[in-house]
Amino acid sequence: MAYRAPVDEFRFMFDHVVDLAAVTAEARFAEATPDTVEAVLTEAGRVCDEVLAPTRRDGDLSAARLENGVVRTSPGFDGAYRAIAEGGWVAVSAGEAQGGMGLPAALTTAINDMMSGANLALQLCPLLTQGQIEALEHHASAEMQALYLPKLISGEWTGTMNLTEAQAGSDVGALRSRAEPEDDGSYRISGQKIYISWGDHDLAENVCHLVLARLPGAEAGTRGISLFMVPKYLPKEDGSVGAANGVRTVSLEHKMGLHGSPTAVLSFEDAKGWLVGPEHGGMKAMFTMMNNARLGVGAQGIGVAEGAYQHALAYAMDRTQGRSPVENGTGSIVDHADVRRMLATMKAEIFAARAIAMACAVAIDRGRGAGGAEAQARAALLTPIAKAFGTETGIAVSDLGIQVHGGMGFVEETGAAQFLRDVRVTSIYEGTNGIQAMDLVARKMADGGEAAFALLDEVEAFAETAREHLPDLAAPVWEAAETLRETVEWLVGQGDLNARFAGSMPFLKGFARVLGGYYHLRAAVAESGGARERLARFYIMRLLPEHAGLLAHARAGAEDLYALTPDDLAA
Amino acid sequence: MAYRAPVDEFRFMFDHVVDLAAVTAEARFAEATPDTVEAVLTEAGRVCDEVLAPTRRDGDLSAARLENGVVRTSPGFDGAYRAIAEGGWVAVSAGEAQGGMGLPAALTTAINDMMSGANLALQLCPLLTQGQIEALEHHASAEMQALYLPKLISGEWTGTMNLTEAQAGSDVGALRSRAEPEDDGSYRISGQKIYISWGDHDLAENVCHLVLARLPGAEAGTRGISLFMVPKYLPKEDGSVGAANGVRTVSLEHKMGLHGSPTAVLSFEDAKGWLVGPEHGGMKAMFTMMNNARLGVGAQGIGVAEGAYQHALAYAMDRTQGRSPVENGTGSIVDHADVRRMLATMKAEIFAARAIAMACAVAIDRGRGAGGAEAQARAALLTPIAKAFGTETGIAVSDLGIQVHGGMGFVEETGAAQFLRDVRVTSIYEGTNGIQAMDLVARKMADGGEAAFALLDEVEAFAETAREHLPDLAAPVWEAAETLRETVEWLVGQGDLNARFAGSMPFLKGFARVLGGYYHLRAAVAESGGARERLARFYIMRLLPEHAGLLAHARAGAEDLYALTPDDLAA
Repeated sequence: MAYRAPVDEFRFMFDHVVDLAAVTAEARFAEATPDTVEAVLTEAGRVCDEVLAPTRRDGDLSAARLENGVVRTSPGFDGAYRAIAEGGWVAVSAGEAQGGMGLPAALTTAINDMMSGANLALQLCPLLTQGQIEALEHHASAEMQALYLPKLISGEWTGTMNLTEAQAGSDVGALRSRAEPEDDGSYRISGQKIYISWGDHDLAENVCHLVLARLPGAEAGTRGISLFMVPKYLPKEDGSVGAANGVRTVSLEHKMGLHGSPTAVLSFEDAKGWLVGPEHGGMKAMFTMMNNARLGVGAQGIGVAEGAYQHALAYAMDRTQGRSPVENGTGSIVDHADVRRMLATMKAEIFAARAIAMACAVAIDRGRGAGGAEAQARAALLTPIAKAFGTETGIAVSDLGIQVHGGMGFVEETGAAQFLRDVRVTSIYEGTNGIQAMDLVARKMADGGEAAFALLDEVEAFAETAREHLPDLAAPVWEAAETLRETVEWLVGQGDLNARFAGSMPFLKGFARVLGGYYHLRAAVAESGGARERLARFYIMRLLPEHAGLLAHARAGAEDLYALTPDDLAA
Repeated sequence: MAYRAPVDEFRFMFDHVVDLAAVTAEARFAEATPDTVEAVLTEAGRVCDEVLAPTRRDGDLSAARLENGVVRTSPGFDGAYRAIAEGGWVAVSAGEAQGGMGLPAALTTAINDMMSGANLALQLCPLLTQGQIEALEHHASAEMQALYLPKLISGEWTGTMNLTEAQAGSDVGALRSRAEPEDDGSYRISGQKIYISWGDHDLAENVCHLVLARLPGAEAGTRGISLFMVPKYLPKEDGSVGAANGVRTVSLEHKMGLHGSPTAVLSFEDAKGWLVGPEHGGMKAMFTMMNNARLGVGAQGIGVAEGAYQHALAYAMDRTQGRSPVENGTGSIVDHADVRRMLATMKAEIFAARAIAMACAVAIDRGRGAGGAEAQARAALLTPIAKAFGTETGIAVSDLGIQVHGGMGFVEETGAAQFLRDVRVTSIYEGTNGIQAMDLVARKMADGGEAAFALLDEVEAFAETAREHLPDLAAPVWEAAETLRETVEWLVGQGDLNARFAGSMPFLKGFARVLGGYYHLRAAVAESGGARERLARFYIMRLLPEHAGLLAHARAGAEDLYALTPDDLAA
């Protein structure tokens, strides 16, 4: 069935759930008028529906492949990528000076979500470019910016992130790639990097690698890492591409899904590179790129969930099976309680995850302007939740989508399985979800819980005002927020970080459950008596109660976990 | 890493969790001495480790294929199947008169579990034969039994189940295949069946299809269905195979996983068949086969979970990453709290699911002997839980296995992804898990909850006695059982079945959570102060609390669910 980008959903989110108007009211977003926002969403949605979605399955069936050292992408991807690039969709938040539209991050997030639902494998390419643009905007010299940014923003060139080495995955500090200074101010880069998404391809005339490596004599660990720009082809001063650089695609991975996205092992062999940011400042610069990308990956999960949901709903509405168990039913399997439960769960979870991602994006936008430090702290707090819960939702919803299809879900021709196979990587890359959860309970609670409490104050204040009209929905949200508050208090009281880490993933999921209740409540208030109130009731009565078990797990501490020894696990 | 069948785990289960001795004490199981049980488990485990497991990946890489109308199986499957057949492993519970060993169903379940962990795709073949043997033992004429059973039990011939048609999936009553009586007492069968696992292959000299079809003038729905034996080759009186029958393999499905198992569309074209059981009695006979198969599919889920767990644990123990966060750690990623949480969750869930399946198997055994009607009701109650929770555990644990592997989990060469892709179908076939949940809250509660209350009495009585020595573990189990009891009371009070169905899947999962707590508590008591107590504490403190949210969902009723209209879902 055909994908339809959920443009209306973003309109509603912006107006009623995350208050985009508070962002666009700022002078720096003067161009982001309601008409512009509307036009951008509509046109991006059209590209998704008409151009990207039709190539989704081709990417799965005909994986990108390495031929004589050159990566050939899947059929149809070239035209679809061109539509993204030529439409200006690579990076709508990039600065106008270099050809971007300077729009809020909330719009970028909406577009990433929609494009991921249409074709995740292809969308990953511009997502990585977005991260690179942001890193260069913050850390590159004016000269490097002038040379690279217009090419990246226009999509003529694409960007990659080169962190991981075989022995250095989540532990980036263990990497061994080296950078030797040259007389001309450049560096010779050597080393091998793995899991480089879109590490090589034939969609653009250049592939720009941001590479983490060590300068001679650099200290061990993350403090001795610097960031370098290493393009596939060396740019000439006029911006055209010149000689090939010393970057070789060694192999592509055979993956469970996302076949249309080439995942490369890259070998840098005395490749020419240029420092980005200060010496030994690579991790900081890379974090700029990663934080952006983490929200982007959360949006990927949500977008795929949307695609899987639409696919399953269309199947269920069309499929008849047995007598309808209800009077005046549709006659389709949607009449069956468990099928309706699955579909309602999918829709309610997508809303919750999307609202969290949007709230994160708006906090990023506000943090760069009037919102200041408080908004920045909000964005920092929500980023790991948006990434991990967005991607867990992508996986869980895609899995339910298979189940709704019954036997047809396991048959590849249906397309239901591809959503799960594709989205499965999103909980792994850009920092595994376990890393996100550790980030949440350690770094993001280093403020003593201040950012979390501020958010819970907002949740409880809203629930208080909603109590008058929707008491049956407002009360459970308020109570859940209290349980979460107590759990945050418990967490920040634990000096031993392992006590926090031991329940960090259930904590993150419990946090997301509560936030989902809050945003559903906002939607119910905005559309009282309507479909959104009914969906909110489903979520708050049926899914929100899960927060209690999750948060009990979060407060269990580390003792019993470490009491289970490796020998116990192997017994 | 090499699979090692968990033989010790079954020994422990039999001795301390499900009391196999009470079964084998019965005269009909005189042969099932402790020595025999030990020898059977050990030898079956050896076959799994040395013969079946090494072919697992070959099945994935080289799918069974249809060539000129003949199905060719994956490399290595022929030898591995021969080891199963010649070792007498197809059906150890089958009657001794026809060549079986007459062992308890609990042993069959253990063997199915172990073989599924080694190679799910191949194990599905004898599992289907087991179901067919049981159906014939109960419903076929003595003549048919004498002709077919020795061949099926020896594995020379294999069995299939032919229920589903394109328009009739979960709604079996909608099937259209026809059977016309012939003068010689046989029938001419015509129709097309889909999703026929191992519907054709080259591992055995005959493939025996049990086919549901309608006699002329039969009433609509399930009451007008009869069961027929339709062999691929017509057997001669001496048991050798004769002429080809009118059964044609139209195509094989391209599936997300389980590539080694050929899933066929079969066309019956005036095929010769013989009635099994009475006219129009097909559903009853098929249910015999399905109930057996449902427990067997539950065991499949658990077995795959075991394989995925061992695979992930070996990877985690081997993988170093970053500084160890604990003193005197292993230096591997097992030292990291979230990795240990994932591994502990996997192990604790496998134990819970396996104990439920074993309790179901023992109830089946007791129900055929001294246990009588009460044991039969227990078996009937536990079957849908064993099937659905076993397979959900297979999926959830395989998914965690991927996550433990990090980026390597998404790369097919690792083998982690295959577990998930293979096991994903188990929550769909043999009655989707949604169908299992409906069965649990409707048919299995038609006794007013009597069987459920009897089981909860057992749980609470055990928790009472355990309270003295392990109060921190016993109390939560007792309280969870009370919450479950209240939920069962609520359910049986709902005259409108949709009110039960609306929360049936969360109910089933909540029921399994509570039973898991009970069986973990039994293990903790049996090995007080040991590894099993530590695992039980992990489960009871961290996973058992989930029951509350699930059971709250179960009690939410149907009103708000059906208030969400199909238009709401599509909005």
